[in-house]
Amino acid sequence: MNVHGKPTRTIWLHPQNSAAVQIIDQRALPHAWVIEDLATLEQAATAIRDMHVRGAGLIGATAGFGMYLAAREAVAADNAAGFLHEAGKFLKATRPTAVNLAWAVDRQERALTAASSPAEMPAIALRTAQAIAEEDAAACRSIGEHGVALIEQISRASGGAPVQILTHCNAGWLAFVDYGSATAPIYAAHDRGIPVHVWVDETRPRSQGSKLTAWELGQHGVPHSIIADNTGGHLMQHGLVDIVIVGTDRTTRTGDVANKIGTYLKALAACDNGVPFYVALPSSSFDWTMRDGLKEIPIEERGSEEVKYADGIADGGRHFEVLVAPADSPAANYGFDVTPARLVTGLITERGICRATEPGILALFPEKA
Amino acid sequence: MNVHGKPTRTIWLHPQNSAAVQIIDQRALPHAWVIEDLATLEQAATAIRDMHVRGAGLIGATAGFGMYLAAREAVAADNAAGFLHEAGKFLKATRPTAVNLAWAVDRQERALTAASSPAEMPAIALRTAQAIAEEDAAACRSIGEHGVALIEQISRASGGAPVQILTHCNAGWLAFVDYGSATAPIYAAHDRGIPVHVWVDETRPRSQGSKLTAWELGQHGVPHSIIADNTGGHLMQHGLVDIVIVGTDRTTRTGDVANKIGTYLKALAACDNGVPFYVALPSSSFDWTMRDGLKEIPIEERGSEEVKYADGIADGGRHFEVLVAPADSPAANYGFDVTPARLVTGLITERGICRATEPGILALFPEKA
Repeated sequence: MNVHGKPTRTIWLHPQNSAAVQIIDQRALPHAWVIEDLATLEQAATAIRDMHVRGAGLIGATAGFGMYLAAREAVAADNAAGFLHEAGKFLKATRPTAVNLAWAVDRQERALTAASSPAEMPAIALRTAQAIAEEDAAACRSIGEHGVALIEQISRASGGAPVQILTHCNAGWLAFVDYGSATAPIYAAHDRGIPVHVWVDETRPRSQGSKLTAWELGQHGVPHSIIADNTGGHLMQHGLVDIVIVGTDRTTRTGDVANKIGTYLKALAACDNGVPFYVALPSSSFDWTMRDGLKEIPIEERGSEEVKYADGIADGGRHFEVLVAPADSPAANYGFDVTPARLVTGLITERGICRATEPGILALFPEKA
Repeated sequence: MNVHGKPTRTIWLHPQNSAAVQIIDQRALPHAWVIEDLATLEQAATAIRDMHVRGAGLIGATAGFGMYLAAREAVAADNAAGFLHEAGKFLKATRPTAVNLAWAVDRQERALTAASSPAEMPAIALRTAQAIAEEDAAACRSIGEHGVALIEQISRASGGAPVQILTHCNAGWLAFVDYGSATAPIYAAHDRGIPVHVWVDETRPRSQGSKLTAWELGQHGVPHSIIADNTGGHLMQHGLVDIVIVGTDRTTRTGDVANKIGTYLKALAACDNGVPFYVALPSSSFDWTMRDGLKEIPIEERGSEEVKYADGIADGGRHFEVLVAPADSPAANYGFDVTPARLVTGLITERGICRATEPGILALFPEKA
């Protein structure tokens, strides 16, 4: 999507130096635009671990390129295959719960078994990394092509008034290689000239909505308004939301949706007010082994400092973390919640839209039956 | 309630100087403890307008004491009654939507008609101001005495495990003269030795939960944890909330509850999980003229800067407002929402607990039938 008017992805091979990869250091957003070069396995691992990059799709793509950088280092190693296996373990340990990370590393290791000598490894690993990135972008683009029909339909029914879309957290292109999941239908609608307006949940405590989603929508020229997380129910009660579209970190084969904490509250409000509630996801986010999201999906508990502090800029651009609570009050910080399938109107996948039920999902993915 | 171990109210006559009133400058909380002297009508008006004091009960009490300060100034005026009427109008204009403010001013004006000379006015106004404050504290204490039965019952049923209570915004003693509304049953339970733990919603964008509720609970020694506003639904799904108790800015005669934005989302989650959802209120918060809260209660829209900024301390205690969003992204800021009566388990008033229905409410307040 556009940044400063120019089509941009979240990760790409350095245009002047094929020994390096470039990423957006997302920690600096929305206040600064920082491009970072990754030239070593170590740098790729740090970028994932310290969240210069985040989001399922982008973590996978970065791991893919990380294995490319590792393959370049492996050429000089005594035991290239052993070196690469250790590199994979090292990458996997950076964000142990990120499914796409392990998947990308394993795919690289499998692809690299085709190398007849270490010297061939970098080229194979680069092709694989680029394929992983391209496939991620293609899946998101397909999600957009399927999902835009929902927005088009609302737009037609309302005589062309801006379609009011609510989203939570960042399931935008910044979390993938391009397009995003929840945002893909929104960008597709905007690019086709369908008027839209996006209500962007701030998404405390990490504020990915106001920091990332608002920024990327603004850069691409999509009309939007940031709202406190408390606001969506009131908007829906007053007919100010036509559709909710969110992403997911993990969705069960029965349609239960784990996503950023607070998603469930918006799903309840959508249900109470007859607002359609859609979840957009590449099929890599399905967990085909799980049937009961509430019981089976583990929910990460994070540090209390995220709740007790807010960070931003003041004093002409200087960055501060400010304490927004009593210093000695405890805080609890659950990262995700699970929205039961009964509250989900439908799932938007790269293969099409389906109901959030096992038969609905398996009709699109019969190979998982 | 206790501050630094000492019983404290939110407003009181200066102990050494009866020509002045003292308040807590709540703008400095939770990071600093600032007592402010109000010696003039002008200072009382500023304290209300600039939110040194806030909350329905405390605004009413401050207006009452403001009229006392005005009465002292009226003694020297050419036309004492005219001066006081203008003073009342001046006070009413500071927070035009605060019902208790106009009510306290009108009560003072009525009481002052009994003065046979301007010289008698200060004593009458002081008595009236103190009566307003005492009645506010007494109503909240009664709310606590009725509401504590609900907590006691849960505690007994769970064999004495800490009763898990969720609250939103600040309906604490800082919003009244003492005890608070939603917090009154909690303080009563704690003071009787019933173990409780309070989940304190941060309550963005103004963060009255983390700044005020967490502070006052901490000062009184009540166990609590601050949570992002997104968290309550997840906690209820996992059996971690036994009861929700919130306050209200205005409740219709049919039981629809206007309260801080986000309350409705917690009511939906409580309903979805079978968690009792109670609203605590002094009867002065009923709007007896309204029957349909969603249609009739006006919802204040506030400035976008509250959403785009967060304020707190950094750098060893210095106060900063930090920008937490893209500088050029718009934000919308609705102050309140309306929870329909169907989602409210009951209302805790100074006369007892009733169902959130017109017959339920009128059974406690038959004079309003």
